[in-house]
Amino acid sequence: MFKATEKPTSARAKILETALRLFYAHGTRAVGIDRIIAESGVAKMSFYNNFPSKADLIAAFLEERHVRWMAWFRSALDARDAKSGARLASVADVLREWFTAPDFHGCAFINILAETDRTSERERTIARNHKSDLLAVLTELARADGAARPTEVGRLALIIVEGAIVRAEMTGEGAKVAADTKRLLGGLAA
Amino acid sequence: MFKATEKPTSARAKILETALRLFYAHGTRAVGIDRIIAESGVAKMSFYNNFPSKADLIAAFLEERHVRWMAWFRSALDARDAKSGARLASVADVLREWFTAPDFHGCAFINILAETDRTSERERTIARNHKSDLLAVLTELARADGAARPTEVGRLALIIVEGAIVRAEMTGEGAKVAADTKRLLGGLAA
Repeated sequence: MFKATEKPTSARAKILETALRLFYAHGTRAVGIDRIIAESGVAKMSFYNNFPSKADLIAAFLEERHVRWMAWFRSALDARDAKSGARLASVADVLREWFTAPDFHGCAFINILAETDRTSERERTIARNHKSDLLAVLTELARADGAARPTEVGRLALIIVEGAIVRAEMTGEGAKVAADTKRLLGGLAA
Repeated sequence: MFKATEKPTSARAKILETALRLFYAHGTRAVGIDRIIAESGVAKMSFYNNFPSKADLIAAFLEERHVRWMAWFRSALDARDAKSGARLASVADVLREWFTAPDFHGCAFINILAETDRTSERERTIARNHKSDLLAVLTELARADGAARPTEVGRLALIIVEGAIVRAEMTGEGAKVAADTKRLLGGLAA
């Protein structure tokens, strides 16, 4: 779902691909640099030339995850091509795809924030930027649906989307949570 | 907000009180046993007699956090004594108190789940039980508000509450998020 479109060839791309997989699945603190190097198949020297510290790799992971997630989200929305009045609710159908994917582990940005005071300002900033971009898309959809107050509706929709991610992760019942999410988002448009 | 009603006297109570404060603020993986022992002011031997492993202490922390959070939540709801039809929406006022408390760091159970595969089955079970109890309270409030389908409304309300916790933690704007949450919960009753 969030894989590279081409097979990574540079050392940097190989490392980043490995980090995207391992950091998302296991958390950024649980996975060590040595494992990333081993699974990337690059030389240690090459790793440190590209990422002087683990913090640099975590930041690059978050930035790349953000870019790929947003690209996937926008293209999945476009593919659905929902009618005006049903655009915000169609977000739930898009989320359903994600929630029911075998490698779903919640939102990487909620997860990193949850590590509380071990989260650096750099990481927090990337997480907040991600959510700002998501908020902008939701607001845009509310506007396309003809909402009287799209900014407000976008903000309410983001609360629902965040809650849906948490529930899908905790219960493992992604399809059911997506159906509930559709009702909630549909109610906002009305 | 979630402090012990009496000053802890036994070694077990002292350790648990320290764990509640440190694990919630910094995360269960970031805080070591040595720090808990030092800040509790108990002997090392006494610590291990009470908690044979860190996993035992984490489980005790989660259980106690669950008990205290639910007790606080129920009593704060009772204190508001909202009218029928406005009971579910009054949850937002109660959450506002929590979101704007100086030591608010989100939900301990969302946080522990976010550590993905480092979270044990024992921890997951306590987290799921916590959310089941919260769901039961929300369903009860929906019923008291006269909702036609209280089970469904309770489930939708839990998605909203989870999202509100995440947004309050990420933005630091607890009062604003609580106001949005009130609108969302109020809409469910209608």
